[in-house]
Amino acid sequence: MPEPRIEAARLWGWLMQLAQITEPEAPWTRRAFTPRFAQGRAWLTERMRELELAPGVDSAGNLLGRLPGSRSPERCILVGSHSDTVKGGGRFDGIAGVIAGLELAAALRASGQRLRHTLQIADFLAEEPNDFGLSCIGSRGIGGALEPAMLERKSPTGRSLREGLAEVGAPPFDPHGARRDDIAAMFELHIEQGPVLEQAQLDVGIVTHIVGIRRLSIRFEGQASHAGTTPLALRRDALAAASHLVLALREALPPPSAAAPYVIATVGELQVVPNAPNVVPGQTRLTVDLRSDDAASLEAWSERLRELAQAAAAAARVRLGELRVLSASEPTACAPHLAEHLRAAARALGLKQQDMVSGAGHDAAFIARVAPAAMLFVPSRAGLSHCAEEWTEPEELANGVAALLAAVLRFDGS
Amino acid sequence: MPEPRIEAARLWGWLMQLAQITEPEAPWTRRAFTPRFAQGRAWLTERMRELELAPGVDSAGNLLGRLPGSRSPERCILVGSHSDTVKGGGRFDGIAGVIAGLELAAALRASGQRLRHTLQIADFLAEEPNDFGLSCIGSRGIGGALEPAMLERKSPTGRSLREGLAEVGAPPFDPHGARRDDIAAMFELHIEQGPVLEQAQLDVGIVTHIVGIRRLSIRFEGQASHAGTTPLALRRDALAAASHLVLALREALPPPSAAAPYVIATVGELQVVPNAPNVVPGQTRLTVDLRSDDAASLEAWSERLRELAQAAAAAARVRLGELRVLSASEPTACAPHLAEHLRAAARALGLKQQDMVSGAGHDAAFIARVAPAAMLFVPSRAGLSHCAEEWTEPEELANGVAALLAAVLRFDGS
Repeated sequence: MPEPRIEAARLWGWLMQLAQITEPEAPWTRRAFTPRFAQGRAWLTERMRELELAPGVDSAGNLLGRLPGSRSPERCILVGSHSDTVKGGGRFDGIAGVIAGLELAAALRASGQRLRHTLQIADFLAEEPNDFGLSCIGSRGIGGALEPAMLERKSPTGRSLREGLAEVGAPPFDPHGARRDDIAAMFELHIEQGPVLEQAQLDVGIVTHIVGIRRLSIRFEGQASHAGTTPLALRRDALAAASHLVLALREALPPPSAAAPYVIATVGELQVVPNAPNVVPGQTRLTVDLRSDDAASLEAWSERLRELAQAAAAAARVRLGELRVLSASEPTACAPHLAEHLRAAARALGLKQQDMVSGAGHDAAFIARVAPAAMLFVPSRAGLSHCAEEWTEPEELANGVAALLAAVLRFDGS
Repeated sequence: MPEPRIEAARLWGWLMQLAQITEPEAPWTRRAFTPRFAQGRAWLTERMRELELAPGVDSAGNLLGRLPGSRSPERCILVGSHSDTVKGGGRFDGIAGVIAGLELAAALRASGQRLRHTLQIADFLAEEPNDFGLSCIGSRGIGGALEPAMLERKSPTGRSLREGLAEVGAPPFDPHGARRDDIAAMFELHIEQGPVLEQAQLDVGIVTHIVGIRRLSIRFEGQASHAGTTPLALRRDALAAASHLVLALREALPPPSAAAPYVIATVGELQVVPNAPNVVPGQTRLTVDLRSDDAASLEAWSERLRELAQAAAAAARVRLGELRVLSASEPTACAPHLAEHLRAAARALGLKQQDMVSGAGHDAAFIARVAPAAMLFVPSRAGLSHCAEEWTEPEELANGVAALLAAVLRFDGS
């Protein structure tokens, strides 16, 4: 029996066919719970049928296809990602990992080889932000983190998530039924969404951790005053405080190092009040996005941020009015034995690789709550993502999927 | 014949009566061209009638009362300010100087003494920002700077300034008729709108210059990217550039000095794009408000600002996309001989004084285009202005008006 081999042209063709299913006015858009998303799922369902994967939707809205195992059919290897996009997103974020799963199934089928485990191909529901204000809905369900109360969340049009799930074809939600305990291994291929692989001229990144994220809201309270008549020495300029913090935070962050936890922080959102050219700013509000692969570092940097904010307030003679945690998620460790299978697979294929921390959240982080999970990154041109320019070369994608297939075979045979 | 003396109780009473004419939902508001403004003007007109000042409105919409002179009735001493306010302004900005004029007329009348020059009391039309997007409308007219084209400006409701002028009772506008060449001296009393007099425990400020103002728009263009996946070293963060500029500009500004021109700059307005917590800012737009009493300094600091913006862009690895002058007004020198009369008057009254630069624009700056003009400041509590908390103590106001009267008498007799 021949070894299963991926077909790069089929893989790329499928990817582009699914990507073309987009809202025409904002390529590339397929937001979860929209008719366009349903159209993409219909296309995926059709491919799964052709591959005899018996497609179906679980009670958390995930579209799943299965290729039963020869030895342990009750234990499954789950391969997938998501087919929904942000508005005006790209052609790779999410679907690269779903199509990779389809390609694995197709390669196995063509070779006549059967895995010992059941192979499941997944399109996890609604990984991206959507109208229900809850991301990773499907993988949350599998990971046991989709609480019944979340199903009562309403979209702006008043529809509940419960209704949204019914509309994507999910059977009535049962939190115990959605949670899975039959997953022997989960693999997710995804585009990097950053510039690291491209800059280092590498083929694949082996994800060791997925960051936890803390969002902190900070408010500086100064005194709005006349831009012409208030001497510098008497100003209490809230924008000066925000500026101090933006620069001090950047300065304080550690350089990347293999020896230390990954920590990164961003001030992406800032409001100035009253925001008038002739008024010294009386108030600023900003959000700090803090990420790390290490829970203790998230805690320590939240404290460090408070010190930096206090120093910034003092430097501008304003008050630190508020420092509040808006949201918090914990870091996830990928399963070391699965990461090692990915490394060995990439090595055997002659691919250049490095271990990486995923700075973005992914479905794998929720699956990791109930099963060993691993991730593989392929390069993103110029590091761009969530935009129309998102791009990965066909051979880069094919290399990643080949490594994924080899790792799945290694795990299945181990 | 007794010397004319101001009556502090009458002065304060008038001030508070006019201040009470306010939009009830947003004290203290009397925006130009509104019915509330007309109500304030009716009150002023009534007071002028009681003082036999023969009130009338000129073709630039200024309300004027006159007390004819005994020797040179064709030459006039103009005393006034404005009765309009910003929305939610205070009880002093503007009307302090108009009521001061009324009090001068009342004091002269009570004493039986006549000035040699004609005394004119002015409520200049629409000094504050208003629906026509043009401030200092009345004083522009007197200063010959109200262009006929400006009369075609439209309010949001589609009314033209020409119609607005007719509604405040102005005769048809004639640019030659509005411009004046009969003003021997103009005096304006105003609240400081800043904290300098209070901090230095002084009674009055003698204004030597009114600043010119340049507004410059600056745009930094970086690269929006993922907050989790873009390493610090590869970021092109437009908010970091803006922060560098805010702090560098503040650092670069000279400390106040009697030996050097007054220069002050403010970043009061800043927009971040896309302004999302999880996106490294791709673009920032900010406005710099640059003020000086010296035209050469305005020019030099505009250039300096360009250097600072270029350095800020370089520090954050972004592009300085734009640096554009939005508006420019030139500095105004107050008439030295009138300022000297104000100094001598304050000295004779035992008032503590200092020379000051006005960091805010005033009607006097437009009158100075056609006549010698001078300004006197009284203290503002905590430097607050354009807000309900605006405050000047009754005796502080009375001291200022007494100095104003003495200076007018000195000029008239000189």
